[in-house]
Formats: sequence, C-alpha cells, structure tokens
Amino acid sequence: MDKIRRVLLIGGTHGNELTGIYLIRRFQQFPWLVSRPSFETVTLLSNPEAIAAGVRYIDQDMNRCCDRAHLDLPEPADSEVRRAQEINRCFGRSGSTPADVILDIHSTTSNMGMTLILDDHHPFKLRLAAALSAQQPDLRIYSSADSGRQQNALRSLGRFGICLEVGPVSQGVLRADLFQRTEALVLQILDVLDQQNQNERLPTVQPVTAQPVTTQPLTVYRYLGTVPYPRDAEGQITAMIHPQLQGRDYERLNPGDPMFLSLTGETMLYTGETVAFPVFINEAAYYEKDIAMVLTQRQDLLIDFAESLW
Amino acid sequence: MDKIRRVLLIGGTHGNELTGIYLIRRFQQFPWLVSRPSFETVTLLSNPEAIAAGVRYIDQDMNRCCDRAHLDLPEPADSEVRRAQEINRCFGRSGSTPADVILDIHSTTSNMGMTLILDDHHPFKLRLAAALSAQQPDLRIYSSADSGRQQNALRSLGRFGICLEVGPVSQGVLRADLFQRTEALVLQILDVLDQQNQNERLPTVQPVTAQPVTTQPLTVYRYLGTVPYPRDAEGQITAMIHPQLQGRDYERLNPGDPMFLSLTGETMLYTGETVAFPVFINEAAYYEKDIAMVLTQRQDLLIDFAESLW
Repeated sequence: MDKIRRVLLIGGTHGNELTGIYLIRRFQQFPWLVSRPSFETVTLLSNPEAIAAGVRYIDQDMNRCCDRAHLDLPEPADSEVRRAQEINRCFGRSGSTPADVILDIHSTTSNMGMTLILDDHHPFKLRLAAALSAQQPDLRIYSSADSGRQQNALRSLGRFGICLEVGPVSQGVLRADLFQRTEALVLQILDVLDQQNQNERLPTVQPVTAQPVTTQPLTVYRYLGTVPYPRDAEGQITAMIHPQLQGRDYERLNPGDPMFLSLTGETMLYTGETVAFPVFINEAAYYEKDIAMVLTQRQDLLIDFAESLW
Repeated sequence: MDKIRRVLLIGGTHGNELTGIYLIRRFQQFPWLVSRPSFETVTLLSNPEAIAAGVRYIDQDMNRCCDRAHLDLPEPADSEVRRAQEINRCFGRSGSTPADVILDIHSTTSNMGMTLILDDHHPFKLRLAAALSAQQPDLRIYSSADSGRQQNALRSLGRFGICLEVGPVSQGVLRADLFQRTEALVLQILDVLDQQNQNERLPTVQPVTAQPVTTQPLTVYRYLGTVPYPRDAEGQITAMIHPQLQGRDYERLNPGDPMFLSLTGETMLYTGETVAFPVFINEAAYYEKDIAMVLTQRQDLLIDFAESLW
C-alpha cells in the first residue's frame, strides 16, 4: 500500500458545528501543530457560506451530496454541490492535489463523546482505530459500513475518509472542553499516521511481563438501521426520546426497554428482538431526516498489527 | 387591581426552541390541563413560519420587535413584525381580547435550569415569583428590569409579561425531562394566578410552630450588563467560554476568576471590580448578538403577602 502523502483536515461541512470550524481556524493560525514529517497536512473550511450564515447548510446537506450523481451535475444550482465539486477537483482521487486521508470534524447534540466514524472496514482504518483506542480507551468507534454513507459523505472524496463526531454540544455553540479533547484526538491521529508512514510500531496495550502483543482488541458499533419519530396523520412528532434513554448513547437497549415518551404521557417500548446500542440519540439535525436514533450492534474485533500496512 | 381575566400561554416565539412549541401543542390537545375556574387560558404558537422552518426567526427576532416603532409600521415587510402586529391586535392592551398575563416559554443552551424572567419589579410579579419559589426552591428569578427588554419583548404586549427560560437544551431538540419540568411549572403558575384571583392564601414557606408568615424571602438575579466575545480585527471570535465557567450560570464569579480561554490557549480573567452572577453563559442564539454571557447581581428581597394584591 502507498504511504500517506497528504492529509486533509476539514471543519465546517455543517456551518453550525463550531468545534471543527474553530479548530481549523486554530490550525490555520498555528500550522506547526498539524504538520508532520512524513506527509503534507492541508486544512479546509469546507462550507464557508453556511459558516458565515451560522446554519447547517444553505441549499442542501453537503455531507450527503458527494455521490457520483451530484459530482457529475454540469451546472449545479445548489451552493453545496458547487462546493463539493470544487473540493473534489482539488482533493478528490483524480484531483490536482489528491488527499490520501480526509478527516472531517463534526459535532453532535447526542452524548456520543469522542467518536471515530468509519464508513468501511478497510484494514488501514481498523488499525488506525485500534491504535487510537489503545491510547484512549473512551474513544468510540462507529461503523457506518452498512448505511450507504461511503457513497455520499464529503470524506468519501478521499482515498481514506474518516469522520470525527464529538458531543454533546449544541449547534452554534463552542465548548472549550470538547474543543480541547477534539484537538488532542486530531493531533493523535496525525501522530499515528506519521508512525505508520515511517513504519514505526503502532501503539498497542502492552502487557508488563510478556512478549510484545501484535494484536489489539477493538470494539466497533456497527450500523443496523434508523428509528423514526412516532408521528400523527399530519406528520407531527407525537413522542420524545424517553428520559431513561436520553444521553445513553452506546449503552445496551434491551427489547422491552423504554424508547419514547409520547406527548400524551405514554411510554413506548423498544420492540426489536435483539439487544441494540443506540447512537445519535436526539441529534438536532436528524429531526428533519426523521431519525430519532441510529441502532447499532456491538462487535468485538481483534486487529492484527504484526505486519506493516504499507 | 383588576383580577386576571385572560392568560395567554405562548410557545414558538423562536421556531427552534422546541420545549415551548410541543408544550403548547400538548395544551391544545388537552385544554383541561391549563383551564382554571377564575380566568380564561389561551394558547398560541406565535411564530408558525419559523416553527415550520425550524429556525429562530425568518426575518428578524420576534422577541425584539414588539416595541412601539415596529408595531406602528404601516406595511411591515418582515414576517415577524407582521405577526407581532397581529398578536398585538388580538392580545395587546387595546386588542380585541387583551391578555392580562402573557407567559412566553423559551429555552436556552445555557445551564439556567428553570428560570422565571421578570422585566420589571411590579408587586404582582414579585409575589408570583415568591409564591412559586416557596414551592420550588430551585426556581431562579432573573430580573431584566434594567436591560430594556420590557420595551421590545413579545410578552411586553400584555398587562403582565413573564418569560420562562429553561435549559440547557440544544436548539432544535426536545428533551423529555425539561419538557416535563416546564409543564409542571406552567401549571403551577396557573394555579397561583387562580389562587390570587380567588383571594386565597398564596403558598409560602410556613414554620411548623409559629404564626403564619406573611413575608417571603426572594432571591433575584438582576441584570447588570452583557459581556461580548473577544474578537480580532476582522471581527472573528478569538476565545471560548472558559471550561471553569461553562455551565456555571447563577454561580459567583469573582474578580480574577477565569472567564475566557483564547484559541491560542491563554486564560482571560474576569476584570470587573465586584462579584457577579453570570447567566446565559454560552447561549447559542447570542453569538450573533455578541453576548457571551449576561452579568447579574444577586439581590435578596422580602416580599409582603399580608394584603391581597387585587
């Protein structure tokens, strides 16, 4: 596998997710923070019009319009599609300065802590995730491999697209604690990529008195499907996330557990047949997509570090 | 003083503050919840266009355009001004069905818990606040009396305007726990108004073995001024709310305490000369108003309940 030559750090794909926007501004002010010896790092505010307006998007969600159909539109009317084409011409796989890794920094109103989103299970991504998890046990790995996101997300323009999702934080709000933790994670990712490039040993959890380990356990929360809001005949939402489920992203949801509380006061239960682990619970931006939460299943993987990836 | 004959409950003055919107919908579905024997209760979603769009406002902040100048505009272009005039023609002091009390339900991304906002210190409002506080000690009373809000807020159209501010909750998000607490507070306010109207004894904190008390202590957090975000020459925000201050609404801020953390990593201190109690810390909607927080001073009042107000 070719080494990583260029990493593109993106913020502001959604103009009201301030963590990534201010982080990119900070990196642009202090480029030495993100420069690494073995590759070039480029920073980008991807949706400047939405950032200026303080909204998620102007015409349509830029993180859903990077599929072939939109990229091939001859003269797109929508601001986000024009911008996606522009970014693709620069950093896409056939672009002027293609990005080997695109790291797109998002935030969420859900209690997802520090989450790394992988859109597929390429060994490169799994090893990156495992190396990061070894250093930072509270990092969560969400796999959207079965959700179709690898076809339309902005990060999909790069050879390897990775997304950070940090929360909970309101839209339009900058929280210093999350800002600092996100910065630390971005720098850590750059360090791991640099180590990989230089064929250095990736960080793993090493036992004190044994042979160096060459495998690393990794827990992945894998997309199963979305849960819509209960609605009435006119399409009005008739129930809220149940207080017992609010904020409990990545926790077990058992069949029969409370899921919604209707506006009339009734508890509505989770009627699935298997245990699920919900994420994106009560994400503000997903009301319009009719997603109350995303259900995942937990998978425990064992990642092999014995051979170099490159 | 005349009795209260009509109470107007409002939600959705800001179209992305879902707590009030869904609460009004619930009250419209179950009117008996808010009906009381001694007055009429009317419910209103005040900014339906902004609610449908899921945004704070369409053209301008409806909670800042209810001053004389806007109400007198002959043919206003802005959606919110037209709507304010319409509401004034119905529920204003010279309207067809004037509201004695307007209770406008808002939410905030700040950690303000359950807050009652008074725009002046009319004895009616202070006694209402004291009676509510006696029942619910964690209720906070914020007085905007010196801020000019009594001239332009939607609630100012009524004889007595009161605002509920509940948080923290993200814009565009409905949280069941806050929803339930807000509902309980609204119903409690209606109960107190009904008791007042019927000349019943208002709830006070009664000592076990003494004469019934006729005064009630009340702590009010009174507006002092706003604190803007630090900015650079181009107007870009250069600092965040300091992590030690985030979420600490209504707590003591001493001269020399951390206030901001700059994007370059420096802590910026509160340089005021007196102790302050900040509120609206990191409210999403106030970034565009350049308000990082509102400083208040704490005042301990003693409210007299001996005589009936009416």
